[in-house]
Amino acid sequence: MVLAKVVGTVVSTQKQPNMEGIKLLLLEKIDPVTIKGKNDFIVSLDTVGAGLGEIVFYASGSGARQTSETQGVPTDASIVAIVDSIVKDGVFTFQKK
Amino acid sequence: MVLAKVVGTVVSTQKQPNMEGIKLLLLEKIDPVTIKGKNDFIVSLDTVGAGLGEIVFYASGSGARQTSETQGVPTDASIVAIVDSIVKDGVFTFQKK
Amino acid sequence: MVLAKVVGTVVSTQKQPNMEGIKLLLLEKIDPVTIKGKNDFIVSLDTVGAGLGEIVFYASGSGARQTSETQGVPTDASIVAIVDSIVKDGVFTFQKK
Amino acid sequence: MVLAKVVGTVVSTQKQPNMEGIKLLLLEKIDPVTIKGKNDFIVSLDTVGAGLGEIVFYASGSGARQTSETQGVPTDASIVAIVDSIVKDGVFTFQKK
Amino acid sequence: MVLAKVVGTVVSTQKQPNMEGIKLLLLEKIDPVTIKGKNDFIVSLDTVGAGLGEIVFYASGSGARQTSETQGVPTDASIVAIVDSIVKDGVFTFQKK
Repeated sequence: MVLAKVVGTVVSTQKQPNMEGIKLLLLEKIDPVTIKGKNDFIVSLDTVGAGLGEIVFYASGSGARQTSETQGVPTDASIVAIVDSIVKDGVFTFQKK
Repeated sequence: MVLAKVVGTVVSTQKQPNMEGIKLLLLEKIDPVTIKGKNDFIVSLDTVGAGLGEIVFYASGSGARQTSETQGVPTDASIVAIVDSIVKDGVFTFQKK
Repeated sequence: MVLAKVVGTVVSTQKQPNMEGIKLLLLEKIDPVTIKGKNDFIVSLDTVGAGLGEIVFYASGSGARQTSETQGVPTDASIVAIVDSIVKDGVFTFQKK
Repeated sequence: MVLAKVVGTVVSTQKQPNMEGIKLLLLEKIDPVTIKGKNDFIVSLDTVGAGLGEIVFYASGSGARQTSETQGVPTDASIVAIVDSIVKDGVFTFQKK
Repeated sequence: MVLAKVVGTVVSTQKQPNMEGIKLLLLEKIDPVTIKGKNDFIVSLDTVGAGLGEIVFYASGSGARQTSETQGVPTDASIVAIVDSIVKDGVFTFQKK
């Protein structure tokens, strides 16, 4: 899964019917050491109630549809977890406040 | 999903039979902040009636076939939404006119 | 799908049994604006009778197996269309002769 | 599969229910010749009891769910092996101590 | 499929049970024109008896599991053919000795 930050939202009224009611979030991939954005963005469905500014990870490909919220939905990216903390080599690089 | 702009069309008469009648659009991936093209193109099936110049996002991989229009079609990219607006960090970076 | 040019062939006698009888073509990905090769190559199965020098697009991933010719074959790339023309921003960038 | 080193852990309480109880590891992809990190990270599920500092390889995409531990879980990366040794051109580039 | 050269082996005792007995090879992706390595490596299962130094191509993603040897195995890359020859623009760039 890829670590990313929720940086915005995408609105669409003309879309595939089974996408109705699922939040579309704009994610920026992050470096898990510096927690800085990599200027690389994707649109992801949200399945865990992620909010603006939160660090999350998303499942890509068919993995994005292995949830009750996204089964059968034409998605290739779904947030599946909100991150509490990241530890690299014994040191916290991120802790949710 | 990946944000892109519809920049053209691709025509093919000699193709897989179940691609008949589905529009083939040329997409250029965009930066969601500047909305500028990234000079990176793909051919996508259209499932939502997208038109030239519109900002869309497409599902890639097997996600591209989770629609009634594209089920069983040998595609790896299908437009699944026309974008109305993109907001990053509380600021509109795109609003459909 | 990705636009590419048929630039050669690959021959293999020792291969997975259900690949027998399917042509293996060498493709070079192209820029759809200049129609020039990008020096990025893949091996693809052919399902539409594509010939040397033709511009095609191929489906990648599981999409490559959604054809009667390639179902169940261990492929991740299959040519699914021969391109007649590409139009970008109202201008032909390619027309088959 | 991709070779990587286990460099840390990721903790999440708000996540997809069937991810409960599966360890989330932070992996850094490595060069298999120098065994050095490539500063390219992913979050992976662990299915083989991998520990910090170990060299592993993970399966990506739907391959990540072909294990009894990860079937139906929304993952796109799962560690499937702990590496004992790597030999390139007849020379060991890595041997587990 | 991607062209690559068999450059080594990877040994693992602690791995997913259904990987037992399948050879794990280290592959280096090659340029099909110069046949030189691109310093880009992956670990692949072997399904065709490929040996050190041979030029092969592998199927990635779910395509890697469309063989009797790899069905249900958590792999994302399997060698599916040993290459005899590559011809680009009418000229042999590779011929197996």
